[in-house]
Amino acid sequence: MKKLINDPKAVVEESVEGFGLAHADLVTVHPDPLFVSRKDAKSGKVGLLSGGGSGHEPLHAGYVGFGMLDAAVPGAVFTSPTPEAIIPATAAANSGAGVVHIVKNYTGDVLNFETAAEMAQADGIEVRTVLVNDDVAVEDSLYTAGRRGVGGTVLVEKIAGAAAERGDGLDAVAAIGRRVNDNVRTMGVALSACTVPHAGVPSFELADDEIEIGIGIHGEPGRHRIAMENADGITDRLLEPILADLKPASGDKVLLFVNGMGGTPSSELYIVYRHAVKVLEAANLVVERSLVGNYITSLEMQGCSISVLRLDDEMTALWDAPVHTPALRWGM
Amino acid sequence: MKKLINDPKAVVEESVEGFGLAHADLVTVHPDPLFVSRKDAKSGKVGLLSGGGSGHEPLHAGYVGFGMLDAAVPGAVFTSPTPEAIIPATAAANSGAGVVHIVKNYTGDVLNFETAAEMAQADGIEVRTVLVNDDVAVEDSLYTAGRRGVGGTVLVEKIAGAAAERGDGLDAVAAIGRRVNDNVRTMGVALSACTVPHAGVPSFELADDEIEIGIGIHGEPGRHRIAMENADGITDRLLEPILADLKPASGDKVLLFVNGMGGTPSSELYIVYRHAVKVLEAANLVVERSLVGNYITSLEMQGCSISVLRLDDEMTALWDAPVHTPALRWGM
Repeated sequence: MKKLINDPKAVVEESVEGFGLAHADLVTVHPDPLFVSRKDAKSGKVGLLSGGGSGHEPLHAGYVGFGMLDAAVPGAVFTSPTPEAIIPATAAANSGAGVVHIVKNYTGDVLNFETAAEMAQADGIEVRTVLVNDDVAVEDSLYTAGRRGVGGTVLVEKIAGAAAERGDGLDAVAAIGRRVNDNVRTMGVALSACTVPHAGVPSFELADDEIEIGIGIHGEPGRHRIAMENADGITDRLLEPILADLKPASGDKVLLFVNGMGGTPSSELYIVYRHAVKVLEAANLVVERSLVGNYITSLEMQGCSISVLRLDDEMTALWDAPVHTPALRWGM
Repeated sequence: MKKLINDPKAVVEESVEGFGLAHADLVTVHPDPLFVSRKDAKSGKVGLLSGGGSGHEPLHAGYVGFGMLDAAVPGAVFTSPTPEAIIPATAAANSGAGVVHIVKNYTGDVLNFETAAEMAQADGIEVRTVLVNDDVAVEDSLYTAGRRGVGGTVLVEKIAGAAAERGDGLDAVAAIGRRVNDNVRTMGVALSACTVPHAGVPSFELADDEIEIGIGIHGEPGRHRIAMENADGITDRLLEPILADLKPASGDKVLLFVNGMGGTPSSELYIVYRHAVKVLEAANLVVERSLVGNYITSLEMQGCSISVLRLDDEMTALWDAPVHTPALRWGM
C-alpha cells in the first residue's frame, strides 16, 4: 500500500485537520468527537447535517458552507459515524429552526442517525430525515436493506441547502430533499479497487481485463463483472437501468452528473459525459444542467458513476442558487 | 490498460468535445486544428493563451474563462501542440490589445510557441511570452533545457489573467506573469506511474515500496527514488529544496498550493497540506492563501506536488479577484 498518509489509524483526523486549516474561512473542525461545522450560518435558518463513512471526499465536509450543509460528521473510513458525534453536530447545525439529517441508506448510518435524532429531539431540537437511496444497481446489498445512497446525495445537499438558505421551513426543506431523491437515479462502474488504509490491501480484486458494473461506493459488489469495454459501451450500460427506472417523459429536463470515483482523470469523465449527453438527447431529454468531476469518491478507485436528476423549475433555480463551500462554489 | 476511453488515438478530441458540451456557457471548442476559446471576452482586453500536451487536465482548457485564459491549445497526450493550432488560437485570443503566451518550459512547447508567435506578429498581433520554469527538482531534464514548468503555471494563469481582466496593458500583464514565476517554486512526488493511452503501458516502473521524488508531470525522472515514507517525511523532502531555492525572508506571506497528480484522493492532499503549513509556519512564513486539489495532473498518476508562491499585496489582490472558468471559480 502506497498512500500519502502517516499513521493509518489517524488518516481521518489528520486529513480533516488539514482540511480545516485550508478552509478556516468557511469551517470549524471539532476534534473530539470529530465533526465539521459552518462558520457563518444565519440564525433562524433550518440546519442541514450530513455524514457517513470517510473515504468519499469531498463528501460530506467539503459541502459545509453557504447554501449547503451546516455541519458534517465524518466516520472512520467506510464506517458509519457514531451517535456520539452526530448528536453534538446536530446541536451545532441547529440555530432554532430544527435540523434536517441527510442520510445515505446504509444500515449503520440509518441506525446511528436515528438514535442521534431521537436524542436530539429529546433535547428539544426538531429533526427531519431525508434518506437518500438513488443507486439503481442493486435492491439490497452487503450494507443495505433497499437501495444504496450514492451520487444523488450531492444533489440533495445542494438543492435542499439552497432551500434552507432562502428561508424555507423544516418540513419544506425536508420535502424538497425527498423530491430530489425521488427524481434521481445513479449507477457506477469500477475499473479498479481501492485500499482502505487500516486494512492495507485492496478491498476486492479485479482482473486486468475486468470491470464491475453497478459497484457501490465502498467497493461492495454491484450487478456483474464483465470484460473491459470502451467508454461508450460502459456509458450505455450505466444509463440503461437509470432510464428504465426513472422513466422520464419525452421533453423532460435533466441534470447530468458524471462523477469520478477518485482515481480517474477528468479527461475520461468528459469522454463519458460526451456520450451520455448523446444517449439522453436520443431519448428526447433536455440536458439543462451538468456536473462533472470528483464529488463523491471511493478513495483512489478508478471508475465513475452517472446520475440523472429529473428537474423541475424550482429544483433548477435552487441548483443555480449561490453556493460557497470548499468543494462546490458559484455565484459568490 | 483499463481506461474510460474509446479509441486511444481519439482521447483528446473526444474528451475536449465532452468538455465543450459540459461548459458550453463558457467555452467554444474549435475542432480542427483543436483549440478552446472563451465565449464572453471583452474587446480591447489583453488576451491570454496557454497550451501544452494533454494529460494534465484541468490545465489548460479548464482555465479558459473570465479572469484567466482567453484560449487554450491541447496537444496530443504529453506532446506539444503544433504551431498550426497555436496560431489560430492566438488570433482567437486577440481582441486588439495583443496576446500573452504562457508557456511551460519544455523544449517542444518553447519552440512551437516561438514559431507561432513569430507568425502571429507577422500577421500584426503583438505577442509577449511568459516562460514558466518553477520546478526545483532538476536543472535540465529529459524534455527540458533548464527547469521544467509545473504547478506554478496555474498560479501564473490566475494572477496574470486577473491583471488582464482589470485592464492592464500587454507588457504589464506579461510582467506580472513573470513576477509570479520568479516567486514560485514547486516540487513533486510520484507514488505510481501513469499510462499514456496510445502507449498502453505505464511510462515507468516503481517497485511496491518505492517512490520518485522530484518527478516531472510526464513521469520523467526526478531527483531520486527512495523507499516509501510517511506523508510528513515526504512533505519535508518536497519543501526543503523549495525553501532553499526560494529563500523567503522571515515574515513573508505565501500561497501554499498542494496539487494532486490525478490518482490521489483529496484526503491525502489535505494530510500533506496539514504538515506543509506546520513547516512553513516553523520557518516564520505566513500562509495567506492556499489551494488544494487536482489542478495540474499527470493522467491517473498517484502523488502530489507542492508549490510555494511568495506573495506581494498586488499578487494577493489579483489572486482574490473573481474568476469563472470550468475548473477554478470564485467571486461570481
